[in-house]
Parts: sequence; structure tokens; C-alpha cells
Amino acid sequence: MTMTSSAVRDYLTGLQDRIVDTISAIDGKPFIRDEWQRPENMGGGGGVSRLLEDGNVFERAGVGFSHVKGTQLPPSASAHRPEIAGRPWEAMGVSLVFHPRNPYVPTVHMNVRFFIALDEKAGDVCWFGGGMDLTPYYPFDEDCAHFHRVNRDALAPFGPDWYPKYKKWCDEYFFLKHRGEPRGIGGVFFDDLSEPGFDQSFAMQRAVGDAFLPAYVPIVERRKDTPHGERERDFQAYRRGRYVEFNLVWDRGTLFGLQSGGRAESILMSLPPVVKWRYDWKPEAGSPEAKLYETLLPHREWV
Amino acid sequence: MTMTSSAVRDYLTGLQDRIVDTISAIDGKPFIRDEWQRPENMGGGGGVSRLLEDGNVFERAGVGFSHVKGTQLPPSASAHRPEIAGRPWEAMGVSLVFHPRNPYVPTVHMNVRFFIALDEKAGDVCWFGGGMDLTPYYPFDEDCAHFHRVNRDALAPFGPDWYPKYKKWCDEYFFLKHRGEPRGIGGVFFDDLSEPGFDQSFAMQRAVGDAFLPAYVPIVERRKDTPHGERERDFQAYRRGRYVEFNLVWDRGTLFGLQSGGRAESILMSLPPVVKWRYDWKPEAGSPEAKLYETLLPHREWV
Repeated sequence: MTMTSSAVRDYLTGLQDRIVDTISAIDGKPFIRDEWQRPENMGGGGGVSRLLEDGNVFERAGVGFSHVKGTQLPPSASAHRPEIAGRPWEAMGVSLVFHPRNPYVPTVHMNVRFFIALDEKAGDVCWFGGGMDLTPYYPFDEDCAHFHRVNRDALAPFGPDWYPKYKKWCDEYFFLKHRGEPRGIGGVFFDDLSEPGFDQSFAMQRAVGDAFLPAYVPIVERRKDTPHGERERDFQAYRRGRYVEFNLVWDRGTLFGLQSGGRAESILMSLPPVVKWRYDWKPEAGSPEAKLYETLLPHREWV
Repeated sequence: MTMTSSAVRDYLTGLQDRIVDTISAIDGKPFIRDEWQRPENMGGGGGVSRLLEDGNVFERAGVGFSHVKGTQLPPSASAHRPEIAGRPWEAMGVSLVFHPRNPYVPTVHMNVRFFIALDEKAGDVCWFGGGMDLTPYYPFDEDCAHFHRVNRDALAPFGPDWYPKYKKWCDEYFFLKHRGEPRGIGGVFFDDLSEPGFDQSFAMQRAVGDAFLPAYVPIVERRKDTPHGERERDFQAYRRGRYVEFNLVWDRGTLFGLQSGGRAESILMSLPPVVKWRYDWKPEAGSPEAKLYETLLPHREWV
């Protein structure tokens, strides 16, 4: 492991700890800790899965750290960088999905990742990726605006163009093509970030990682005790079906992980605890559920 | 539409009606009927979705008929038949998945399909595909043996080799590679059937389609009133997660449908009504739930 990748690794494991500690304090229930190794014949490495299930505030919350290695970069990972095909590589990241119990608290996803193609002679090539996005069940414009504002402010020190670019990328990525429907209200998404150089790219990754708690926690605090009944829980379970559909049909990270022999239980920590499907269901006109589809899901400028 | 494809269509729509009538009589609740058209700019055609939700015996049961057309056979459909690439085509089929309420009744899937690549000069090329497979929650050897026996007997008039061949194909196809786990206890699966000629191939498809009710209904009748509690319902919801994972990650028909602009609600009729995920769950040693993993799921010769 090089100096640079060890600095990234330290940041990522520290981020996982900070998030787990904060969310656990809000919930009142501790996360379990599950350490796992990747078989040596697959390249080695491993990870730490942290999980909270059946909590007071979170019905299922997973925060995974993984650091895996390989001897030959697969063609899919180097399609637009042919010069690095076949090199030894390392990938590390923190990925989380939180499914709250109260339907007025949105589901959230965050991921920060770092990829390095090793070459002692020609020099290592590395890049960053990441982002976060919010999936509300009931529409509160101020929550969406807050989430986007924190993301915009986190990227602002690096220039005014990053947030609009990454906001658009997020809208495009988290989209269920088979339903013509966004997964939620977006946030930011980026990949292949190397052009500003290692130091700035790493600083941008840290800015996004550090923005997660301030972007999400105030929304949780504001909504977690909102009274609700079976109707709201039922709508939440129905909408969670869309989350499953996106992750299993369209999410590149999930599919790559499952198809390449990744650890299924760690990858599928993102799936909701209880999900419902029913045929061709439409919300009643004028209902809060209809408002989600009509006013919140269509792509909007939130800040 | 040619004479041959109209005969297949008549068989398929009749099969859909027979199955719907029988299952509806068992359940006591009627199926809804939803007719849909495929946009002309996608090639045209359409289908009829029949659905029973929140029934007495079935929590969700969908039987779809579709007949869709295209002007140019996609390369994926003609990979091992290069001579027919780019021809106009028609595809029709009946596909069903039944999710019973009682956890002692297995989930079942059946599909029969017919594909035709049109060419007035060189002559049409057509083939059949299909099969059925059973996914129990609680292990009853006699149910599995019955299901396989009916399938074996249905194919026996065409020779002794078809059942073992299609049984093996089914075991290989309905397998969750990311978990190293079969979806259920199999049945039969076939595709690209044209070699015995149209008449015998069509007869074999009818034999499989006609075998569905005798293979499944006796199991439903035997188990549908078995007393059960929260424990069994919970295990059923957990195991249904595997069904979702298979259909959305591995099933070629589902993925092709969703990625090529098929009607999402009709394709996703196969998903269970209520599903649960939890982290790295293992059944207690010696429990009936453990017995499913230990004695039923590993590939076996049932007849």
C-alpha cells in the first residue's frame, strides 16, 4: 500500500466510525461489527460491515468499509483508460444506506470510493468517486433544499461548477429507466475524478464524506417523531420496492459486486427490511402520496 | 400471423384462461383482467395480464399472456443463429408466478413461450421454450417428488431423455450464483426447441403447459390449511427475498423485458407481495427452516 492509499484508507475508516457513532447515538442501539476477508484466490483484501437492525429510529442501517485488491484490472474498469488495462489494482470505499422506521424520514445513501491501478515504472493511476442521494416518502421541500444546500456548500470551495455538474450526474444515475421515474430527489454523484490532481480530488472526496452527517441528521431529528399510522407505513413499504428495483436492476456497483463474487450479505445491506409490491398501484389524486410523484420526484433545482 | 403461430396463440390464451379459472375457484376470489398494447414504434402487439391480490389462498398470483412483434431480431436473440439476425419477429408466451399466503404452500413459476423469425422467401424459423419450477419454504419430500413426477410423465411420451435433460437445465438456470444457492427444488426448463420439428415441439410445449395444474394444484390442496404462525410467515417473507434477487439480478426474461422497454407492471407481477431482508441470517440448527437448506435445496433426483 502506498502513502497515498494509506491516507485515503485512514480517512475512510475514520468516516465509517464517525457515522456509526453518530447514528448509533441518535438511535439508542449499537451497530454490530462484522469483519470479513476476501479469498486470496480472488485477490485478497476484506472489509468491515457495521449494521443496525430493528433499531428505534432505523429499521435497517448498514455502513460498509471495504478494501479489495486484484492482480489484473478487469476490462470493464478500464474501458476508457486502455493504457492501464491488466494492471494490479486496489479499490476501497465506504458505502451506506439507512432505512428509517418513520415514513416521514427519508431513506439515504452515501458512497465514497477510491481506485488505484498500480505500476511501479509508469507510476500509479488513481481516481475518486462518490456521492449521496435522498429518497423521501413524504414531501417536505425544506428537507430536500437542506440536503442539496449542504452538498452545494461542501463543493463550493473547489469552484462553482462542481455542484451543478454532480447534481445533474446524480439525477441521471439514480433513475429507474423501466418506470421512467427518479429514485428520489437526488443529491450529488461523481466518478473518475482525477483531473484536478490527487490532493484536490482527495479533498473533494473528504468534503462530500464530511457533508453526509450535516446533510442528513437534521432531517432525521426533525421528522423521526412525526405521528403516523398503517397508511404511511404501507406507502413506505411500497416505495421501498422501487429502491430494490433500482439497486438490483440498475446499480452498477451492486451488479458488479454480485456478478464478480463479492460478499452478498455486505452488498445487499442496502436492501430495505420490509418491502411490498402490488400491481399497478396509483396514489389517490390530491393525496400526500400523489404529491410525492407530482412535485418531488420530477427533477428540480433545489438550491 | 401464420397458421402455425395462430395455433400456438390459441393454445396459450386457452391455457391462461384454464389456469385462471382453476386457481380462482380454489381461492374464491376472481382475477382482475388488464389488457395492454405495446407502442407501435416499439413493434406493436400487446397482452393480457390477469392478477389476483390479497386472496384467500394466494397473496399474489399473476398470469400474463403477451404477443409482441418487432421489425428486426436483436443480436442477443440470434447469437447462435446468425442466419436469422435482423429478420422481423414475433414472440408470444404465458408466464405465471403464484405467491401463496400459507408458508406451507410453495411458490410456483411456469412459462411457455414461442418465438418466430419471419422470412417469406427462406421460410420462417421458429422455436419453443418453457418450463416450471417449485420454490418451497418448508420441506415436504412428497410434494417435490409429485411435482417432478408429473413433469417427467408429461415428457415421457416423447422419449426418456427429455425429462433428465430439462431437469438438469432447470437446476442450472434457477441458481443464485451470488449466494451459491438454488432458487428452489427445480422442475423442468427448456429453450431453443425446434429440432424435433414444429409438430413435436409444439406438442411438447403443450405437454408442459397442460402439466402445470396437475403438478401444482394437489400440493396447494394438501397444504393450504396447514396451521401456522408468525414464525413461518416471517421465514416465508425472508425466503421471498431470494426470489426477488433471482428475478431482478439473474432472470434473463425479466432483465431483457425491463431493459428493452417492456411493461414494468406486467413483468414485475412475479415479485412477492411482502418481502423481508435481514443481515446474514441463518436458521437454527435442527429447525424445519434449516432442513430446507440442508435436505431440500441441494440438487437431488426427485423421481
